[in-house]
Amino acid sequence: MPTIHEPTAVTAEMKDAKKDYLDRHTPRVIAPARVAKGESFDVTVRMGSEYVHPDLPEHYIQSLQLYRGEKLLGGATYAPGANSAGRETPSGFQQATFRIALDANATLSAMSYCTMHGIWTSAAVVVEVE
Amino acid sequence: MPTIHEPTAVTAEMKDAKKDYLDRHTPRVIAPARVAKGESFDVTVRMGSEYVHPDLPEHYIQSLQLYRGEKLLGGATYAPGANSAGRETPSGFQQATFRIALDANATLSAMSYCTMHGIWTSAAVVVEVE
Amino acid sequence: MPTIHEPTAVTAEMKDAKKDYLDRHTPRVIAPARVAKGESFDVTVRMGSEYVHPDLPEHYIQSLQLYRGEKLLGGATYAPGANSAGRETPSGFQQATFRIALDANATLSAMSYCTMHGIWTSAAVVVEVE
Amino acid sequence: MPTIHEPTAVTAEMKDAKKDYLDRHTPRVIAPARVAKGESFDVTVRMGSEYVHPDLPEHYIQSLQLYRGEKLLGGATYAPGANSAGRETPSGFQQATFRIALDANATLSAMSYCTMHGIWTSAAVVVEVE
Repeated sequence: MPTIHEPTAVTAEMKDAKKDYLDRHTPRVIAPARVAKGESFDVTVRMGSEYVHPDLPEHYIQSLQLYRGEKLLGGATYAPGANSAGRETPSGFQQATFRIALDANATLSAMSYCTMHGIWTSAAVVVEVE
Repeated sequence: MPTIHEPTAVTAEMKDAKKDYLDRHTPRVIAPARVAKGESFDVTVRMGSEYVHPDLPEHYIQSLQLYRGEKLLGGATYAPGANSAGRETPSGFQQATFRIALDANATLSAMSYCTMHGIWTSAAVVVEVE
Repeated sequence: MPTIHEPTAVTAEMKDAKKDYLDRHTPRVIAPARVAKGESFDVTVRMGSEYVHPDLPEHYIQSLQLYRGEKLLGGATYAPGANSAGRETPSGFQQATFRIALDANATLSAMSYCTMHGIWTSAAVVVEVE
Repeated sequence: MPTIHEPTAVTAEMKDAKKDYLDRHTPRVIAPARVAKGESFDVTVRMGSEYVHPDLPEHYIQSLQLYRGEKLLGGATYAPGANSAGRETPSGFQQATFRIALDANATLSAMSYCTMHGIWTSAAVVVEVE
């Protein structure tokens, strides 16, 4: 199977040496800490927090997925260059925003696929339902 | 081929008689009227403007796509119930937000697929690049 | 909305002048004429019947979809170069084979998306259920 | 992140106790042992080898992906019931067949997603190029 790159599997040393590589490939789930039961809200899956991933035909983030536990809630795909208009590096982070609702506390996470460096996963994010 | 439901093909009479059916199936592209060249911005593809589409296992909006002219920029898929947490009707419109950039004036449009009522297209939206 | 290229919209003159262009972009549904009720069988969606479509990063068939009437049964996506191993033209037609079953006579059709020339549809194919 | 179910992580005891569960969720890559350089050939990703996975709206195999090492070559998605025509269990294994070509020896593997039991991976299959 393809390697599943996980943020928790990275040592402190690796983190420092390959900081930009790891950062721009690791998806982040950006969600409210608390939401109302059954009410729609937005969740963003963003690639990187400091370094922007290239967006070139031969090297780009092709897809992002959002999970609630084991359950795939949604996925997004991109054409190469969609976020850079042909430049090597986009001006802003690559991301997609999904609209979801929850009935109970949930753990959200994300996966992404880079056409050159494979599958990556996010840290988990807990969303509480009031 | 499957019918491609287009907003321009709908007569005024049909519009009135089937207002809710047409509205909740027709995707809309929500984008800024003007953007800076090469700068990332968000575009939302939203289902409906007055009526919210059901989000049930047997009847839901499975996918949305964003086009620049003939070019597919991005796509989003949803699991049934993702935006309703199991209720029949979500509290808010189903939508997905893509991050893109443009180098020249562009015409954006969207398509969507309802598991019961097939393929639908949006009106076109012009975005000017400054 | 993006142009939906349909085989029936092509005149005899156009067919001749743009024969290779039309052929390599038009998906075909290859299915048995008769199947047993509820029994699984294979359906192939193939791009072209005489001319093979290029399979390059900047120009390739990214996706194929199979429909039963208005209903999307399945879809396939490809990475550029998957069927050519980096050559300009693959040695064989690009295609994907789905396994489906039917309960009643059905009309199958396909759509495809070329990263340079947009959305194309197949002729319809009738499958009888015994 | 969602659990990635791997065949190698399963103990002999578990294998026996949960034989049907494991078998019907584990994708298999069916490919020739040897192929000619650059020549197109078919690769099938099949769910299960003895037990057929259900194909119901609330429990079905939604997607399959084919990888060459870390590289995603292709993916297939299915609508629920596409392979069962509404029966609980299809008459044959769920599968999709991709057409690919190789330039050098390769290791192929597959992933799949079950709407109830999450992400699963196949064993790796080596294909030699002559």
